[in-house]
Amino acid sequence: MSEINTQTNSTHGRKSSRSSSRRRGARRKAARKLRVVPLGGLGEIGKNMMAVEYGDDIVVIDAGLMFPSEDLLGVDLLVPDFTYLLENREKVRGVVITHGHEDHIGALPYLLQSLHVPVYASKLSARLISAGVKQRGAKSKLDLREVNAGERINLGSLSVEFFAVCHSIPDAMGLIINTPLGTVVHTGDFKLDHTPVIGQPTDLHSLALLGTQQVLLLMSDSTYVELPGYTPSERTVAESLERIISDAPGRVIIATFSSLLGRIQQVLDIAAKSDRKVLITGRSMENIVKVASDAGYLRIPPKTLGKYEQIHNLPHDKVVILTTGTQGEPTSALVRMANREHPQVRIVSGDTVIMSATPIPGNDELVSRTIDNLFRLGANVVYGFQSRVHVHGHGSQEELKTILNLVRPRFFVPVHGEYRHLSRHAKLAQQMGVAREDVFVLNNGDVLELTESVGKVVGRVSAGDIVASGPMMGPLDPNMLRDRRLLSRDGVVVVTLPFVPKKGTLMGEPAIVSKGFVDTRGDGDIMRGAQEAVMSAVGQGRRTAKDRAALESQAREALAKYFFAKTHRRPVIIPVVTGI
Amino acid sequence: MSEINTQTNSTHGRKSSRSSSRRRGARRKAARKLRVVPLGGLGEIGKNMMAVEYGDDIVVIDAGLMFPSEDLLGVDLLVPDFTYLLENREKVRGVVITHGHEDHIGALPYLLQSLHVPVYASKLSARLISAGVKQRGAKSKLDLREVNAGERINLGSLSVEFFAVCHSIPDAMGLIINTPLGTVVHTGDFKLDHTPVIGQPTDLHSLALLGTQQVLLLMSDSTYVELPGYTPSERTVAESLERIISDAPGRVIIATFSSLLGRIQQVLDIAAKSDRKVLITGRSMENIVKVASDAGYLRIPPKTLGKYEQIHNLPHDKVVILTTGTQGEPTSALVRMANREHPQVRIVSGDTVIMSATPIPGNDELVSRTIDNLFRLGANVVYGFQSRVHVHGHGSQEELKTILNLVRPRFFVPVHGEYRHLSRHAKLAQQMGVAREDVFVLNNGDVLELTESVGKVVGRVSAGDIVASGPMMGPLDPNMLRDRRLLSRDGVVVVTLPFVPKKGTLMGEPAIVSKGFVDTRGDGDIMRGAQEAVMSAVGQGRRTAKDRAALESQAREALAKYFFAKTHRRPVIIPVVTGI
Repeated sequence: MSEINTQTNSTHGRKSSRSSSRRRGARRKAARKLRVVPLGGLGEIGKNMMAVEYGDDIVVIDAGLMFPSEDLLGVDLLVPDFTYLLENREKVRGVVITHGHEDHIGALPYLLQSLHVPVYASKLSARLISAGVKQRGAKSKLDLREVNAGERINLGSLSVEFFAVCHSIPDAMGLIINTPLGTVVHTGDFKLDHTPVIGQPTDLHSLALLGTQQVLLLMSDSTYVELPGYTPSERTVAESLERIISDAPGRVIIATFSSLLGRIQQVLDIAAKSDRKVLITGRSMENIVKVASDAGYLRIPPKTLGKYEQIHNLPHDKVVILTTGTQGEPTSALVRMANREHPQVRIVSGDTVIMSATPIPGNDELVSRTIDNLFRLGANVVYGFQSRVHVHGHGSQEELKTILNLVRPRFFVPVHGEYRHLSRHAKLAQQMGVAREDVFVLNNGDVLELTESVGKVVGRVSAGDIVASGPMMGPLDPNMLRDRRLLSRDGVVVVTLPFVPKKGTLMGEPAIVSKGFVDTRGDGDIMRGAQEAVMSAVGQGRRTAKDRAALESQAREALAKYFFAKTHRRPVIIPVVTGI
Repeated sequence: MSEINTQTNSTHGRKSSRSSSRRRGARRKAARKLRVVPLGGLGEIGKNMMAVEYGDDIVVIDAGLMFPSEDLLGVDLLVPDFTYLLENREKVRGVVITHGHEDHIGALPYLLQSLHVPVYASKLSARLISAGVKQRGAKSKLDLREVNAGERINLGSLSVEFFAVCHSIPDAMGLIINTPLGTVVHTGDFKLDHTPVIGQPTDLHSLALLGTQQVLLLMSDSTYVELPGYTPSERTVAESLERIISDAPGRVIIATFSSLLGRIQQVLDIAAKSDRKVLITGRSMENIVKVASDAGYLRIPPKTLGKYEQIHNLPHDKVVILTTGTQGEPTSALVRMANREHPQVRIVSGDTVIMSATPIPGNDELVSRTIDNLFRLGANVVYGFQSRVHVHGHGSQEELKTILNLVRPRFFVPVHGEYRHLSRHAKLAQQMGVAREDVFVLNNGDVLELTESVGKVVGRVSAGDIVASGPMMGPLDPNMLRDRRLLSRDGVVVVTLPFVPKKGTLMGEPAIVSKGFVDTRGDGDIMRGAQEAVMSAVGQGRRTAKDRAALESQAREALAKYFFAKTHRRPVIIPVVTGI
C-alpha cells in the first residue's frame, strides 16, 4: 500500500513532464474534475451503463438490458434510466461498447430513440447491435462505427483507446480513456485466457505499460470475485467434450449459449474428428452460426455441417445436435425436446445431452426441471461443474488480482456485479495496496468526482428501475407490482352490486365472478355462501346515492371475512356498484 | 456384479434355513408379494412418504410436506396424496418416522385428520411432531409412540427395527423392515459422519451384518449423489467458525437452521471459549434451544447464554447473535436486520454476519439479496462454500457407495431427490454391482411389486399434487394456476356494462376498474380511450337479453385489442353485464 501511495504523491509532477499536452490541459482546466456516473450494472447483474464526464464531454460506456428477477411480475426487461444522459444530451459525444452481450448492448435501441449519438463497437458487436436494433423496431437511424482493438477515437476532450480482452464472446474490448486529469482503464467483462479458441488473449502488455505510468482510475469486472484461483481456459473444455462425444452410443445433443462462439468452434472441430455431422436447431443458434461463419469468426470444417432434414437419415452415432436452451427457456429447442414437444427430435434412451453452460442465478429451477425431464426420457445428461463441460467467461480472484497488480491505479471502482461482488472486489483491491479511501463501491446513480488526488461521491442522479416492454419504456410502479403480487397469490373476485338509486336498495342479488381464486371445479357452494354474506352485510336498509363508497367497503369486508373463514385465502376483491 | 447375482440365486435357501418363522410365512403366503408404493419424495425434494405393503399390512414411512416452487403461485404447502392409504385404511398398521425435518413429518397433521394410526418416532422427532400437530391445529388425538435406535416394533406381518443414522438433526434413524419375503433397508436421510457433534455416527455395524445375509431391497437417500467424495464431518465447521469469531472486531451474527443442533452446539462452545455471550433472536431458534436443552440434546456452557435485552449493554466484541434466516425468509430476524427493520439490531460497520447454511434450490435470489443488503450496511458477510462455515447433512457419492457396498441388496430403489438424482444414484448402484433389471427409478404413485427374485412395476395409484392451506387440503387446480399466472403478468381489468333490458341498449358509459395493469399514476388517458373502444364496439344497435355472452365477448375483444395496441400488455379482462 505504501509503495502505491508514494507513487501517487509524485504523480502530478511525473505526468506533467511526460506529456506536455496533458500538462496544458491540466493547467487550463485546473478546477475541472472527472465525473464517473454509473447508470446500471452496479449492485445487479446486467443493464451495464456508465457515464464518464469531463467538462463538456460525456462518454457513455455500454447500454445493456437486464432480465428481471421473478418477483418483478410481468416485467419483460429492465433498461438503465437515461434521464441523466438526456438532461445532458448536448454533452454526450458517443457510446463505446465493450462487447456484444445483451447486458451491454441491449438498451441501445431504447437509448437511441431519444439520443442521436455515434456508437463505437468492434465488428462482431456492431453486427449484433444492428440485428438488435432491427429486431426491436427502433426507428432512428443508427450511427454505428466499427473500431478495432488498438484503435483510438477522440470524443471531445476525452479519447478512448480499445484493447483486446478475452470473454465468452469474441471481439470483446476493454477501454483506456485518456482524460486531462489522467488515464482511466475499464476492463469490460474479461478473463485471462492465454489460449482462447477464437481471437486474442487479454492484452496484458498494454495494461502493464500503463501500470508503469500512473493510472488515475481502474474499473474492473467483479462478476466472479467469489471464485478463488483462475478461471480455466476455454480450451480445457475440449478434452471433456471429446471424451463424452466419442464414448456416446447414440446422438449427442449439446446446448450452449449462441454467443459462445469458442465453444461452438470446439464442437464443430470435435464432431469433424469424430466423424459426426453437426445439425443445428433453434433460431438464435442458426443465425449466429451463419453470421459468425460469414464474418470469419467460425471455421466450419468441410462436410461437418449437416442439413437439419438429414436427422432422420443419419445413424444416431453420426449425429451431434447443437442448440440453445441451457437456461431452461420454455420456448427453446432443448426444453421442447425435454417436454416431448419438439417436432423433429424425440429423445430416446442412448441419447447423450450435454449442458455446456451453467444456470444464470434465477434460472436454476427451470434448468433442473429440464435436466430431470431429459433423464425421464432416458437420456444420459451431462451437466454441472464436475463434468467439466463449461468454463466461465469472467476472471476469478487471481485474475482480478493480476489486473490490479499490472494497472496499479490510484483510484479503484469495482464494476459489474451484485453489491456483494463489488464489496469483495473492493476488499481485494485494498489487499493489493489501493488505499481504503481511494476505493469506491458505488451505487447506480452515484456521482463520483475525482481530482488527481481526491475522490468523493458528490451527489446522485436518477437511476431507478425502468421497464421496457415492446417499444415502450417507463418507470416501475410499485403499486402496480404490489397489486400483481396480491393477484398472483389468491386471484381476484369481482362482486357486482346492482343498486337502484330511486329506491336506495339493491335490485336482486349481487353477482360474483372469480379468477384464480378457488378450485373452479367445485366452487358453487362457496360462491352461493359469498352471495349470502354480501346480502346480509349490505342488503338491508335504505341507502342514498352517496353511499357508494360505504357499499363497496361493506361488501369487500364481508367477502374478505367470509372467504378467509372458508378457504384461508385472501383474494383481491373488486366491488362494482352499478346504478349510481 | 456377478458376485452379487450369485449370492442372490442362493438367497431363498439360505434365508429359509436361517429363520423358521420366515420359512413358514413364506410357504403360507407363497403367492404373496411385497409392494413398495412411493407417495412422495421421488422426483422432487420434499414431502417424503412411502408405503411398504405385504398381504394385509401396510407400514407408512414418513409423512412430509414440501414448500412449492415459485411457479405454483399462491400455494403455501404441498402434501402427499393420501388416497391410496385412505382406500386401504384397514391395512395401515402405523407410520414410522425417520427424523424430525418438516419434509418427513410435516404432513402428519393432515394425514392424521382422516387416518387414526400410531406414529413411531425418536424422542426429538416426537417432540417436533407434537409441536407441529398443535401448531397446525389438527383436532384428532395423536397416538405417538417413542422408539429408540436398536428397538424393534411389530406391525402385523412386518416388523421394523430402527438404526441410528447421522443427519443434520439429531435422533435420525434408518429402518430395517423385516418382511416374510426378506429384509428391506431404508436409510432415511443420512451422511456418514464419524465424528458427529451430537448423537451417534451412522450404525455401519448393523448394515454390515445385514450385508452378510441377503438384503432384499435397499432404499437409499439420493439428495447429494451429484457431489463426488465424502461430505465433511460437522466438526470441520468448528475450525472456520472459531477463526472467524475470534478475529471479528465487533458483533458476530450467525444464522443457521434451527434444527441443526450440532451447529448450534458448536456456536455455543466457541462463544464460551471466546468469552462472548450468545443472544438468540427469532422465534423458531428460541424455541428449539429451549426444547433441545431441556431434552438434553444441547449442553449450554455456563454463563454463555445471555438475555436478549443485554444487547445494548454488552460491548460488541462480547456478543454472538444466533438466529435463523439463512434462506432469505422475509419475516426472519436476519432479513429484517438486512432491511433495517429489526427492532433491536441495527447492522453497523464492524459487524460480522456468518451464513452457516447453503441456499436450498429456489431460494438463491432471496439469499443473495439478503447478503447484498448486509454488505450495503457495512457488515462483513461470510458465506458460500469457500468459507467452510457449513457442511451438508446428506452423504456424497463415496458415502452412497459405502452403503451400497455394505448392504449389497438384491433390489435397489433410490429415494429422496429430484429425478436426476434418482437416475444418477441408480447408475451408481449398477456400477456397484446391482443388476440393471433390479434397480428401479420410481415415480410417485408407481406400485413396485417384488418377489424374492423378480421386481416389476405393476401399476399406479393416485399421487398428484395436493395443496394444503391452513387446515384445508385439496388437489391442485391447473385452471386456477393458469388464471393466477395471467393475473400476475398483466393484472386485471373489470368492465361493467349497464344494460337496460327493456330498451336493449347500454345505460350510460361502461365503468372500467383495473388492478395491477398499468401505472396507476398516469392511466387516465388509457382508461378514457378504453371506454371509447368498448362503446364503439358494443354501444350501437339494439340487443335482446339473450345477447349477454355476445356483449361480454365483444367488450373483451375490443379492450384486449385496444390495450395491446396501447401498452403491449394483455391483462385479464372481466366483463360484467348488469341489468340482464
